[in-house]
Amino acid sequence: MSETRFDVLTIGNAIVDILAQSQEDFLVKEDIIKGAMNLIDGERAEHLYAAMGPAIEASGGSAANTAAGVASFGGRAAYFGKVSDDHLGGIFRHDIRAIGVHFETKPLAGDPPTARSMIFVTPDGERSMNTYLGACVELGPEDIEADVVAASAITYFEGYLWDPPRAKEAIRLAAGIAHENDRDFAMTLSDSFCVDRYRGEFLELMRSGTVDIVFSNESELHSLYETASFEAALEAFRADCAIGIVTRSEKGCVVVTRSETHAVPAHAIDALVDTTGAGDLFAAGFLFGLTSGRSLADCARIGALAAALVIQQIGPRPRENLKDALAQEGI
Amino acid sequence: MSETRFDVLTIGNAIVDILAQSQEDFLVKEDIIKGAMNLIDGERAEHLYAAMGPAIEASGGSAANTAAGVASFGGRAAYFGKVSDDHLGGIFRHDIRAIGVHFETKPLAGDPPTARSMIFVTPDGERSMNTYLGACVELGPEDIEADVVAASAITYFEGYLWDPPRAKEAIRLAAGIAHENDRDFAMTLSDSFCVDRYRGEFLELMRSGTVDIVFSNESELHSLYETASFEAALEAFRADCAIGIVTRSEKGCVVVTRSETHAVPAHAIDALVDTTGAGDLFAAGFLFGLTSGRSLADCARIGALAAALVIQQIGPRPRENLKDALAQEGI
Repeated sequence: MSETRFDVLTIGNAIVDILAQSQEDFLVKEDIIKGAMNLIDGERAEHLYAAMGPAIEASGGSAANTAAGVASFGGRAAYFGKVSDDHLGGIFRHDIRAIGVHFETKPLAGDPPTARSMIFVTPDGERSMNTYLGACVELGPEDIEADVVAASAITYFEGYLWDPPRAKEAIRLAAGIAHENDRDFAMTLSDSFCVDRYRGEFLELMRSGTVDIVFSNESELHSLYETASFEAALEAFRADCAIGIVTRSEKGCVVVTRSETHAVPAHAIDALVDTTGAGDLFAAGFLFGLTSGRSLADCARIGALAAALVIQQIGPRPRENLKDALAQEGI
Repeated sequence: MSETRFDVLTIGNAIVDILAQSQEDFLVKEDIIKGAMNLIDGERAEHLYAAMGPAIEASGGSAANTAAGVASFGGRAAYFGKVSDDHLGGIFRHDIRAIGVHFETKPLAGDPPTARSMIFVTPDGERSMNTYLGACVELGPEDIEADVVAASAITYFEGYLWDPPRAKEAIRLAAGIAHENDRDFAMTLSDSFCVDRYRGEFLELMRSGTVDIVFSNESELHSLYETASFEAALEAFRADCAIGIVTRSEKGCVVVTRSETHAVPAHAIDALVDTTGAGDLFAAGFLFGLTSGRSLADCARIGALAAALVIQQIGPRPRENLKDALAQEGI
């Protein structure tokens, strides 16, 4: 196996988040599924923005947040994702490069514009996302930088990429390159409704060995295996991937391999502010841990630390330097 | 005096903030005056953005933050300020209207673009601003909605408006309309370097009775009267305006009239995060207090509350509902 240039490459929908606080009844009135990623078109995006309270803008995108997290831990990170050459695209590019992530995906010239997600954060800290995919629909195999995939210890993508039309071709191409180079390929199931849309394909990715490492939260796991039994779902998950990670919010997480099971508690927090980015940052910590030679239990602890930091602030990427935070924890 | 439609109208440079954390040595290296508003041109804006770490975007602008604060307290607020019809201008318009502020200033069609301020927040919580004025240079007397000025109990503007070329004409026009309608006219001195640029004109505004109420912080007051003696500066200030307010950070504030002096302590905070918006929100609370019939000391307490809330978060406008916060305080 040749030397790596990157610890973690991530691939996903390149999105700028528009975050505002809202009350529960707003979600009901606007027919927004709470806690989910709701896909919306341009017309609904305009409607929701007009109804939205004062907001802040912050670069987001699930896998992009993960790459930013890896870089913040001091890992070498790269990202593929499609923006347009508009103002939001410039913000996205600035922020991901400013944290040290390799990002060279060619921007789209003109329409559709850069993707944005309007995120309503309710008083309980839960985020409900409303995503207009915009330029993300143009991501395709031509955006896979083969040399970057070949030189990345782990390539990770978000299940959300099954929503735009051609990204899945890009992912299958990248998986082939990764495995030809003896690299690991990883994914997150992203969202229980996303799992519901693509259950068969996600299971096929796992069972065919296209992905080696799979991140899931509890509701995604139940959706994947269509069972109310956590134990049954976990055993099925164990059989379907080399490393399976199930995050369970305040209950911590469980990591399973064919022969091992590690339950790790959540990291303590002072106050829950905004869950945006929790899963993305957990994955960042876990993947950084893997590529820096930690045990699976320690990988989970590092993931839990990053998740705890991001949910105590507004926005999807922690403002703390994660390398310093990790040094303080001494994991 | 006819009935009012607005409690507070504010006029200022309409700006979107780009906020990032930075170390002290970055300010030194980039020759940024710490704690000040540094005016920059388009070329330097590009240079600083390239050197800036990951950022978030939030609508700002000193007087706009004050209008947003008044609205958050439940006051009736209006704002005049110039954006362009670009993406940042759309964000600015959305955010100020979304909190309930009347904002109908005609946007500029095309260049220069909407103003932005790159704000570097150092570990001590101090913010250092780098403002590209963009479309703000086009604000002029034609942007004064005479009916809104006439119907506002208090019209307030920022001293920063002496930087763009024609805004001062707009302010003198507005002052005339306000006083013809027996309304109060107020200003903030904005920044000690701004005072240094326009000391003579600011003193003339005060001594001619063009402004009735003046907000200053300690360093602006020392700059205005070119004295190191706080007592001497305060007595000069008392003589020069009907109501003078001096904010002194953690030392609280002093309110002076010809015959009264009120010292009010700062509001307790848990942790200082980012001082951006502190003075703007103090003014919001004070002006809301005045228009809701409070005593001067209570006005200062309401200002201190709003300032305390905004400095415990990133960004220039508090995410808390100030009306609820005030009800909890019981002022």
